[in-house]
Amino acid sequence: MSSTGHEQHAMRRALELAATPGVPLHPNPRVGCVLLAPDGTVVAEGHHRGAGTPHAEADALARAGGAARGSTAVVTLEPCDHTGRTGPCSRALVEAGVRRVVLAQRDPNPLAAGGVATLRAAGVEVETGLLEAEARELNRVWSFAVERGRPFVTWKLATTIDGRSAAADGTSRWVSGTASRRDTHRLRALADTMLVGTGTVAVDDPLLTVRDAEDRPLPRQPLRVVMGERDLDPRRRVLQPVEGVLDAPTLHLRTRDPREALAALAARERRHVFLEGGPTLAAAFLAAGLVDEVVAYVAPFFLGAGHAAVADLGIRTISDAWRPQVTDVTVLEPVVAGEQPDVRFTLVPHAQPIPTTRGDA
Amino acid sequence: MSSTGHEQHAMRRALELAATPGVPLHPNPRVGCVLLAPDGTVVAEGHHRGAGTPHAEADALARAGGAARGSTAVVTLEPCDHTGRTGPCSRALVEAGVRRVVLAQRDPNPLAAGGVATLRAAGVEVETGLLEAEARELNRVWSFAVERGRPFVTWKLATTIDGRSAAADGTSRWVSGTASRRDTHRLRALADTMLVGTGTVAVDDPLLTVRDAEDRPLPRQPLRVVMGERDLDPRRRVLQPVEGVLDAPTLHLRTRDPREALAALAARERRHVFLEGGPTLAAAFLAAGLVDEVVAYVAPFFLGAGHAAVADLGIRTISDAWRPQVTDVTVLEPVVAGEQPDVRFTLVPHAQPIPTTRGDA
Ligand SMILES: NC(=O)c1ccc[n+]([C@@H]2O[C@H](COP(=O)([O-])OP(=O)(O)OC[C@H]3O[C@@H](n4cnc5c(N)ncnc54)[C@H](OP(=O)(O)O)[C@@H]3O)[C@@H](O)[C@H]2O)c1
Ligand SMILES: NC(=O)c1ccc[n+]([C@@H]2O[C@H](COP(=O)([O-])OP(=O)(O)OC[C@H]3O[C@@H](n4cnc5c(N)ncnc54)[C@H](OP(=O)(O)O)[C@@H]3O)[C@@H](O)[C@H]2O)c1
Repeated sequence: MSSTGHEQHAMRRALELAATPGVPLHPNPRVGCVLLAPDGTVVAEGHHRGAGTPHAEADALARAGGAARGSTAVVTLEPCDHTGRTGPCSRALVEAGVRRVVLAQRDPNPLAAGGVATLRAAGVEVETGLLEAEARELNRVWSFAVERGRPFVTWKLATTIDGRSAAADGTSRWVSGTASRRDTHRLRALADTMLVGTGTVAVDDPLLTVRDAEDRPLPRQPLRVVMGERDLDPRRRVLQPVEGVLDAPTLHLRTRDPREALAALAARERRHVFLEGGPTLAAAFLAAGLVDEVVAYVAPFFLGAGHAAVADLGIRTISDAWRPQVTDVTVLEPVVAGEQPDVRFTLVPHAQPIPTTRGDA
Repeated sequence: MSSTGHEQHAMRRALELAATPGVPLHPNPRVGCVLLAPDGTVVAEGHHRGAGTPHAEADALARAGGAARGSTAVVTLEPCDHTGRTGPCSRALVEAGVRRVVLAQRDPNPLAAGGVATLRAAGVEVETGLLEAEARELNRVWSFAVERGRPFVTWKLATTIDGRSAAADGTSRWVSGTASRRDTHRLRALADTMLVGTGTVAVDDPLLTVRDAEDRPLPRQPLRVVMGERDLDPRRRVLQPVEGVLDAPTLHLRTRDPREALAALAARERRHVFLEGGPTLAAAFLAAGLVDEVVAYVAPFFLGAGHAAVADLGIRTISDAWRPQVTDVTVLEPVVAGEQPDVRFTLVPHAQPIPTTRGDA
C-alpha cells in the first residue's frame, strides 16, 4: 500500500516542523513528526529541538497521549532504534499502539538505524521514501557527515575582483561589504564549528563569533577551532569568553593534517565545519580533497597586490584548473548607503558523489 | 516657448533613429532627425550612417525636398556649423526654410559647435535640452572623447575567482566561458580601437578581431593596436590580414607612456579604446588614471597560482584600495552545455567627473 493524500500532506507539515527556525540541533538531524487518526485528521505534531530533548516521535506521542493508539506516524527520518540520550523511538511507537509508520529518509547513521526492522517485527506497517528528496535536502550536511564519518566542510572566502583577500600589509577589514558579512554570520550560525589557521589568528585576531545585524553575539555559538602547530598568544580574542554567551569554548588543534583535524572534530560529534581560511589552510584542505562546498564573496574593487585568496594548489596549466560546479550565484545588494554590491558564488566539487539512500529493504 | 507633445514624441523617435544598430559611425556621433509639419505630422526622418555619409539633418532634408519649408527640425545633436566632409547643417536647415529647431544635446566638439548661433542669427527659433540626458547617454563615449581630446578607455579583464588571468605556464584559453567571450566581441564591436601590450602578443598571439557567434570576423573591424618598445615578430597573428575583411590595419605604438599612446590615437580620431591587457599594461593605465570604465568577467574556478589579473598598483593597505563605482552586475548564463555562469562587473572610476553640457546660451 502506498501513502495516502492525507499522509503526503502530513509529511509536508512534518518537514515544516523539522525546519523550525532558531532550534539548536547539533549534533542531531532535524526531524518532524505528525500523528494521523485513521480518518486522516491530525492527532498531534512534534519536532526535535536538539541534543538532550525528546526526539520528534516522542514529542508527538507525549502530546497525543492515549489518542496515539491506532494512529499513523508520519515522520521525516527513520525512527531510531537505539538507547541514546533518549529511549528508542521504534519501541515507543510500538508501545503507544501506532499501527502504521510513513517515513521520508532512512537513517544513514549505523548507530541509529534499525528502526524499520524493529517496527515491522512488531507488526507495524512501514512505508519509506515519501518526499525523501526534500528530507535529505533538509539534513544534507548532517547526512553527509554521518555517512562519511567526518564533518562536512564549507570553505568561505572573501576576495577582490583581482583575487586578493588581504592587502600587502595584511589588512583585510573589510574586503566584502556589510551585506556579505551579515550573510557570512547567517551561514556561520548554520554550522557547528568555525575553523581558521594560526596565521589568521596571528594577523587578524578575529573574534570568530556569530553576531546579529546589531553586532551582538547570538546566545548559541559554534565551536571555535584554530589549526596549526604554533602556540597561540593567550591574549588573542579567539581565546577570550564571548560577552553574554555562557559556553563559547575554543579548541586548538595542534596539527597540519586536515584529515586528522576532521577526525578529531568528528570524535566531538561536529557535523559542519565552516572553514574561513586563510589561504594556506584553505589550500591544504583543497589539496586533500576535503572541501565539500565553497562560498566565495567577490567584492568589486582592486588591490593590485597582497595576499592571494588561496595559496598555490600545484596547478601549472589552465586545463588543470580546479573547476567546481556552480550551484548558485547571487548579487548581494548593499544594505549600507555608499557600499557596493558583492557577488556570492556557491560551488560544490565535481567529484563529490551525491549521497544516495540505501533504498527500501 | 517650450517643446510640444509632438516634438517630444519626435525626439524619442530621433533618438531611436540615431541608435539604429549596425551602422558604423566612427569617428562621428550617432545622430537622428525628424522633420515635423506645423500640424505636428512627420514630414521626413533621417539619421547619420558614418563618416563620408550625410549628417542626419541633411539626410532628412533630402527625403523631405520642398516639404521641409516651414517645418520644425527635431534633432538629437546641435546641427554642425563647419564644412567638413559635408557642408554645415546649420546653413542647410536655413536654406531649406526650416522655421524652428528643437535639439537635445549641444555639440561638445569645438570644431562643430556654433550651429545654434548661426540658426538664431538667420531668424530660426531654437530650443535646446529636450531629452538631453538620453542623447548624452547615446553618445556618452563620443562626448567624453571630444570633450577630453583623448579616447575613452574601457579596460576589460577576465579573471578566476582567485584573481588569475592566466595559469602559471601562461595559458589563458579560456578563463571565461563562451557567453563572456561573445559578450566581449559585442563590446569590442562598439569600440573603434583594441589595445594590448607586447607581452600579450608574445604569449597569447591573439588575432584581436571582432567575430560573430559562428566565429566569423565582422566586415568592419576596430583598429588593432599593440603598445610597447619591443619589436613584433612579423609572424604574429595580429599583424596578418583578417580573412574576408578588406581593411584590418594594425598599429604598433612604440611607447610605454599611456598618455602618449592616447594622444597618438586621438590624432587618428579614435574615440574608444578597448584595453584588453595584459596585467602590466592595465596597471600602467590605472596608475596614470586613464581607465574610464572597467568590464570585469569573473569565472567561477580556481588556479591557485599564475598571472595576476592586474600588476602591482602600489597599494599597500586596504583603505587605499582602488574602489571604482559599480554601474552593473550581470550573471552571464552559459550558452554552451556543461559550461558555468560567469559574472560581469561594470565599473567607473569614482573620480571621473560626469561630463555636463554648457547650458543654453
Ligand atoms: N578575506 C578572507 O576571506 C580571509 C580569511 C582568512 C584570512 N585572511 C587573510 O589571510 C592572511 C593569513 O594567511 P595565512 O595563510 O597565514 O593564514 P592561515 O591559513 O589561517 O594560517 C596558516 C598557518 O596555519 C598553520 N597550518 C595549519 N594547517 C596547515 C597546513 N596543512 N599546511 C600549512 N600550514 C598549516 C601553519 O602554521 P603553524 O606553524 O602554526 O602550523 C600556517 O602557517 C591574513 O592576512 C588574513 O587577513 C583572509
Ligand atoms: N585574462 C585576460 O583578460 C588577459 C588579457 C590579456 C593578457 N592576459 C595574460 O597576460 C599575460 C601577459 O602579461 P603581460 O603583463 O606581459 O602583458 P602586457 O601587459 O600585454 O605586456 C606587457 C609589456 O607591454 C609593454 N608596455 C607597454 N606599456 C608599458 C608600460 N606603461 N609599462 C610597462 N610595460 C609596458 C612592455 O613591453 P616592451 O618591452 O615591449 O615595452 C611590457 O613588457 C599572458 O599570460 C596573457 O595570457 C590575460
